[in-house]
Amino acid sequence: MTSVMDASQVAAHNSKLLAQLEADYAALAGVLARRGQDIEALTAQARHFAVAVPSWGVGTGGTRFARFPGRGEPRNVFEKLDDCAVIHQLTRATPTVSLHFPWDRPEDAAELRETAAARGLGFDAVNSNTFQDQAGQQHSYKFGSLTAGRLEVREQAVQHNLDCIALGQALGSKALTVWVGDGANFPGQHNLRGALERYLDSMRQIYAGLPDDWSLFIEHKLFEPAFYATTIADWGTSFACATALGSKARCLVDLGHHAPNTNIEMIVARLAQFGKLGGFHFNDSKYGDDDLDSGSINPFQLFLVFNELADAALREPGLRPAYMLDQSHNVTDPIESLMSSAAEVQRAYVQAALVDRTALAAHQQDNDAHQAAQTLKQAFRTDVSPILAMARLRSGGAIDPVACYRASGYRDRVAAQRPARTGASSSGIV
Amino acid sequence: MTSVMDASQVAAHNSKLLAQLEADYAALAGVLARRGQDIEALTAQARHFAVAVPSWGVGTGGTRFARFPGRGEPRNVFEKLDDCAVIHQLTRATPTVSLHFPWDRPEDAAELRETAAARGLGFDAVNSNTFQDQAGQQHSYKFGSLTAGRLEVREQAVQHNLDCIALGQALGSKALTVWVGDGANFPGQHNLRGALERYLDSMRQIYAGLPDDWSLFIEHKLFEPAFYATTIADWGTSFACATALGSKARCLVDLGHHAPNTNIEMIVARLAQFGKLGGFHFNDSKYGDDDLDSGSINPFQLFLVFNELADAALREPGLRPAYMLDQSHNVTDPIESLMSSAAEVQRAYVQAALVDRTALAAHQQDNDAHQAAQTLKQAFRTDVSPILAMARLRSGGAIDPVACYRASGYRDRVAAQRPARTGASSSGIV
Amino acid sequence: MTSVMDASQVAAHNSKLLAQLEADYAALAGVLARRGQDIEALTAQARHFAVAVPSWGVGTGGTRFARFPGRGEPRNVFEKLDDCAVIHQLTRATPTVSLHFPWDRPEDAAELRETAAARGLGFDAVNSNTFQDQAGQQHSYKFGSLTAGRLEVREQAVQHNLDCIALGQALGSKALTVWVGDGANFPGQHNLRGALERYLDSMRQIYAGLPDDWSLFIEHKLFEPAFYATTIADWGTSFACATALGSKARCLVDLGHHAPNTNIEMIVARLAQFGKLGGFHFNDSKYGDDDLDSGSINPFQLFLVFNELADAALREPGLRPAYMLDQSHNVTDPIESLMSSAAEVQRAYVQAALVDRTALAAHQQDNDAHQAAQTLKQAFRTDVSPILAMARLRSGGAIDPVACYRASGYRDRVAAQRPARTGASSSGIV
Amino acid sequence: MTSVMDASQVAAHNSKLLAQLEADYAALAGVLARRGQDIEALTAQARHFAVAVPSWGVGTGGTRFARFPGRGEPRNVFEKLDDCAVIHQLTRATPTVSLHFPWDRPEDAAELRETAAARGLGFDAVNSNTFQDQAGQQHSYKFGSLTAGRLEVREQAVQHNLDCIALGQALGSKALTVWVGDGANFPGQHNLRGALERYLDSMRQIYAGLPDDWSLFIEHKLFEPAFYATTIADWGTSFACATALGSKARCLVDLGHHAPNTNIEMIVARLAQFGKLGGFHFNDSKYGDDDLDSGSINPFQLFLVFNELADAALREPGLRPAYMLDQSHNVTDPIESLMSSAAEVQRAYVQAALVDRTALAAHQQDNDAHQAAQTLKQAFRTDVSPILAMARLRSGGAIDPVACYRASGYRDRVAAQRPARTGASSSGIV
Repeated sequence: MTSVMDASQVAAHNSKLLAQLEADYAALAGVLARRGQDIEALTAQARHFAVAVPSWGVGTGGTRFARFPGRGEPRNVFEKLDDCAVIHQLTRATPTVSLHFPWDRPEDAAELRETAAARGLGFDAVNSNTFQDQAGQQHSYKFGSLTAGRLEVREQAVQHNLDCIALGQALGSKALTVWVGDGANFPGQHNLRGALERYLDSMRQIYAGLPDDWSLFIEHKLFEPAFYATTIADWGTSFACATALGSKARCLVDLGHHAPNTNIEMIVARLAQFGKLGGFHFNDSKYGDDDLDSGSINPFQLFLVFNELADAALREPGLRPAYMLDQSHNVTDPIESLMSSAAEVQRAYVQAALVDRTALAAHQQDNDAHQAAQTLKQAFRTDVSPILAMARLRSGGAIDPVACYRASGYRDRVAAQRPARTGASSSGIV
Repeated sequence: MTSVMDASQVAAHNSKLLAQLEADYAALAGVLARRGQDIEALTAQARHFAVAVPSWGVGTGGTRFARFPGRGEPRNVFEKLDDCAVIHQLTRATPTVSLHFPWDRPEDAAELRETAAARGLGFDAVNSNTFQDQAGQQHSYKFGSLTAGRLEVREQAVQHNLDCIALGQALGSKALTVWVGDGANFPGQHNLRGALERYLDSMRQIYAGLPDDWSLFIEHKLFEPAFYATTIADWGTSFACATALGSKARCLVDLGHHAPNTNIEMIVARLAQFGKLGGFHFNDSKYGDDDLDSGSINPFQLFLVFNELADAALREPGLRPAYMLDQSHNVTDPIESLMSSAAEVQRAYVQAALVDRTALAAHQQDNDAHQAAQTLKQAFRTDVSPILAMARLRSGGAIDPVACYRASGYRDRVAAQRPARTGASSSGIV
Repeated sequence: MTSVMDASQVAAHNSKLLAQLEADYAALAGVLARRGQDIEALTAQARHFAVAVPSWGVGTGGTRFARFPGRGEPRNVFEKLDDCAVIHQLTRATPTVSLHFPWDRPEDAAELRETAAARGLGFDAVNSNTFQDQAGQQHSYKFGSLTAGRLEVREQAVQHNLDCIALGQALGSKALTVWVGDGANFPGQHNLRGALERYLDSMRQIYAGLPDDWSLFIEHKLFEPAFYATTIADWGTSFACATALGSKARCLVDLGHHAPNTNIEMIVARLAQFGKLGGFHFNDSKYGDDDLDSGSINPFQLFLVFNELADAALREPGLRPAYMLDQSHNVTDPIESLMSSAAEVQRAYVQAALVDRTALAAHQQDNDAHQAAQTLKQAFRTDVSPILAMARLRSGGAIDPVACYRASGYRDRVAAQRPARTGASSSGIV
Repeated sequence: MTSVMDASQVAAHNSKLLAQLEADYAALAGVLARRGQDIEALTAQARHFAVAVPSWGVGTGGTRFARFPGRGEPRNVFEKLDDCAVIHQLTRATPTVSLHFPWDRPEDAAELRETAAARGLGFDAVNSNTFQDQAGQQHSYKFGSLTAGRLEVREQAVQHNLDCIALGQALGSKALTVWVGDGANFPGQHNLRGALERYLDSMRQIYAGLPDDWSLFIEHKLFEPAFYATTIADWGTSFACATALGSKARCLVDLGHHAPNTNIEMIVARLAQFGKLGGFHFNDSKYGDDDLDSGSINPFQLFLVFNELADAALREPGLRPAYMLDQSHNVTDPIESLMSSAAEVQRAYVQAALVDRTALAAHQQDNDAHQAAQTLKQAFRTDVSPILAMARLRSGGAIDPVACYRASGYRDRVAAQRPARTGASSSGIV
């Protein structure tokens, strides 16, 4: 494997922080031991955690008002892979990349797969983009893609999804994520039912093209780009469609795609119960689909999501929902945000593993709401940072990935090689 | 039929307003004719409209902070029927009453049924109340009813629902509405999945006791009385449960039970498409489950709901969702609010019938969002008040029900007979 | 005045619709007369209504996901003026244009002013744009403009506002609207208080440069482009700042810039009461700052806003808040949407004039909530379309502006002259 | 001071947990020392923290649907004091009680003050309740209190507030909190501006009766009990009124009284900046005014509020906002919830003290959003539980207050003395 970062830089970084980490780790080990918990088991668990990085996320994002480019943004999928490789090399928690087509379409899929493998990376679910028009595209998606009223538009969108599957197969992916922005901006613009019937018809064609060992993830979103009625707006619609399509179709939960006040962890529990939990797009938000860094606004909610996953895993040991980051980095270095966010998701995973589920079940059975709540809170309050750092260290990563990255000068190097882009992002969502 | 109001009072009222109504009706007939629409067909349609009145709604409602009793509140189900009879006599749009047990449990069901029939009233869906403890109740619902952790509590709640079915059969009802407030106030208080598993287990027992020609309506609610996680919180959960139970189980949409910004008309379209639209609890709201008068806050939304129903009825002529008002009258005379609200729902029904669906479909097919939207808006903007008044007049009701009611002195008469209650409502939800 | 549209086309259009309009107008006159209201007074009032059109609004808008260009989009401020002139010629309700700098900066302000005057147009408030970076700009606004931590950025932003005032003076404007997207995406990114202190310091410099007869409008917005903390996020902050600045500073209410469930009409009442109501940006929304067509989602809310304005005008006859449309047209022809939206705002204005305020005050004093509510509803339910059409006709506009515009072939003509743009909008917000 | 709990029980409890606490404390001391922070300074700071307990909070709360009484609920203000004394004895963080009149009106204020003092308790702000009618009350508050249209109602409400001040003076309070539920359920029910004018007129009379060393806290609430328009609905209105009244009037922030998605910590910063931050009602919520336990739903938000307070205290060392818990305990033992909630608020206070403000300011100046955010997150992630426990221990409280309380048998003892109440709470908000 060819490392993007010089391994000796990582080693030098670690050697400076090692003593402090060991002291903090020992202190935490003692605290946990006094509660009857074994830090080593948790560290081992942490080392198994993995979350995918979205290819578009290594570019600087923006809003409809503006995009303020960062330095050294990747110009193509190979440069994106370089950035993803840095993230994984330092965090050891992001071994896969989630590609978006047509943005990331390679001329030579085999070359892309080999390049990724050489960097220690594989490919997670591929994403079909039919919410933008590309230069030279025959039919516009202005009035919908899989739900469009005109047959030729739907056929084009279906074909693009089938192409994505083919590309994904060549790259070693095992899942297709379908998110469409289709919807209406005015009451009356769409026949609400007709639009979903056309969606289901299109999706059945895509499903028919799915290899046996693939999954089809349906992603819902309350609003934006459609502002009155989004065809796949909520988990209920996603669930009904996944049920209609078949066992390979499951629902993908993006943490930012819900109505205000929605209890997201309960949606996770429902989908797990009804056998349709496919995976996650992790991010955080305060207002809408803000696409902020995971855990930056409401870290307790992220913990509660993983608390449900830990509960579901007990009931169904084979449950393997896909974990993907899906964030827009408008004011930070995307590499830094993705490294920290991977750690935040991993943190929630480890904290959920800390929950004393026997005690919790007993409090629940006793209707002891106070102690049940405290059982969760104690796990959430535990600062598992030393576990995360030790897991990284033992897996060959950096104790403090952001500090190590900053010291490495990586951004300066790529900024020198990659000319600045201005305006809208050429490689994806702003 | 024994009228609660003196028919001569109604006649006198109508005779005073008749000339103005006829002039307004003729003016509207002309406007519609110039658009190619026949007012008489609409008036005939309006006369067929019916919506049920909730028995609890004729008492004064309140909040957790206070209840300010009104004058002459009904003290029992027979007095409630009297008030409901006034509403129907003047509006001719509310021929049925939706009872709540145990509040409305009669000593003699046959007597109650005969009393209702004598007033021209029948019974719509019966409602089982397991969100309160009643004096002498063996097990408390403090920690849940159909979802309770303790088996004996669930058994009591199931039995109550079976009793409701039996009572409903004696009264001529054909449906049971199940709303439970069950849920948690703290993360951890409940096992989210376990609670729904117990709910489904309880509901299967109730479903098993359902007569063949009955429907079971599942009503969801985002929050309150549970403030962190409500077991039946959204239409997705309601739909999944109705599907799990069988074809007699369908979903009930209360307009006030959704997350902020939810597109309710789209939920209606979804449930209709997937064969699970059971009925409605009509009311309006601005913040939460405000239980305000139907159409008082967002009348266009109410119209859009009926626009979906009109669309669904074209596809499925046999579709007969249950229509029920479900409102809390905290600052008005409940009889007045229920009369006006029945008219508001009827208004939306008639406005939806005004939509030129051929033109709408053409605009949709042409992606002409502007004209599609205007097609709906033109129907909504039409003031169909003369149609509603003429429909009432021709069916034997009052041209202006509230004015007629006020002139009748009914409230004064019953206030003299029914001593004031203070504090919490003895007959139901405050 | 040089007309963009051929006046004979408008006349031919009107002659075809005149008979129907006169019949509908007469029918409505009768309805109103039976209620004691004079249609002619209302029509006269309608003719005095005016709302400004935003220059950016005549281009096709978009979202952060995509922009789907329309045909014949204007490429510069002169072509924008042509489109605005069409809107005013047909609606006679939009005599002014609200410019945005630097997008609309003319090389020769006098030429622009003359061109506008020749088309019968003037200029309303000018808007300073410091939420984007322009090519060649010295300092970036990535981390704020008027609130930026670095002095040189703030100075640049202040100077741009002073330049806007100078330009506005040359063009005949009398107000500057300041909206900044400044804020933070992460807790901690900003010192929340420090940012507002810097904002006030910058605004004091701008205020000092304001001519005596100018107004300074402060526009708040809950979120987007900032997703955690927006410096001017709510009316409370806007009010406190306007108070701190002085009597020429007032608050601008954009209907889409509030938290979910906010009672906007109450904000209007508060600002009027405390002497700080500056004006409006009209649009509609269901989820966030959706920038949908005015009145397209919640027309009753628009009416309630004008109901407050009518109440305020009674108390303070000199009150003249600025009225501006501010919408993004993503799926319609912007000219059509702006014509219809101007009519929707005008409709709410006329409906508010229909409210019987003497009766309303009496019901309020009697705590007769039912009749008070019905008093508003009756006015809102009245279909004043014939009044609006007659007002247009008498002022020289079109009975049905959209039909007339479509028949004119204007869009085809300009599409032939203006080559298609793709990607992000060159002239402003997407 | 007479202790409600036997001090030897507390001592026995502490002796069992001491070794573990000392080990955990030493471990945390090491972690903090490695970051350059002194645990002893933090512990000393923690010992100075105090938050008031609301008298109504020691009873079981409920909703408009039901109240499920707990065991041994206090029947009068003296029994409430007993419960409050337990909370303070074990937590050493709640030395004051916030009374509500007329619920807590004593026959002999001196006796009440002495009883409190004997239990080590004092009185924080007194609260005037004009949102309910009391038996024998002359005028009803059904249609408002301080804003009522009828003068005699307003006079009664003003007089009640003046009585509260007099009572508060006798009890040693120094502040009056005014929360009114006044508002409208229907558009049109109120003249929105007229209602606020009457409010201000009433408040001026109350303000005139305020002793020189007293504060007047204005508490706003978005909705409930009013469901369309609440007169004091947002911080903007609260701020404008406090400004109009004078320097003794300031704003009170209840964490549950805001629109969805509101950034509460920014409101805190704004009020501090403009000199009008009066105090807090702490609780947590997910949907509306849920009145859940502080920190139980979004602990990071609570931390961010204290982060603003720590920032404000640096700028204005004399700033002393009032801290009060204000929660409804529907499913837990209120004493347990109040003890835990006091600790949660104290936790946020200590975590905010952990923030490295010099580093934070530097990151902010550098536009280093990532490190600024991490600076806050590191403080929040620190589990300061050992500091809180040690502070309690050193001040004479219990290491684990809930465990100590449960072991004491207090609830059983009072349940034997206090007969169960059913139905609505006689002593306050349900």
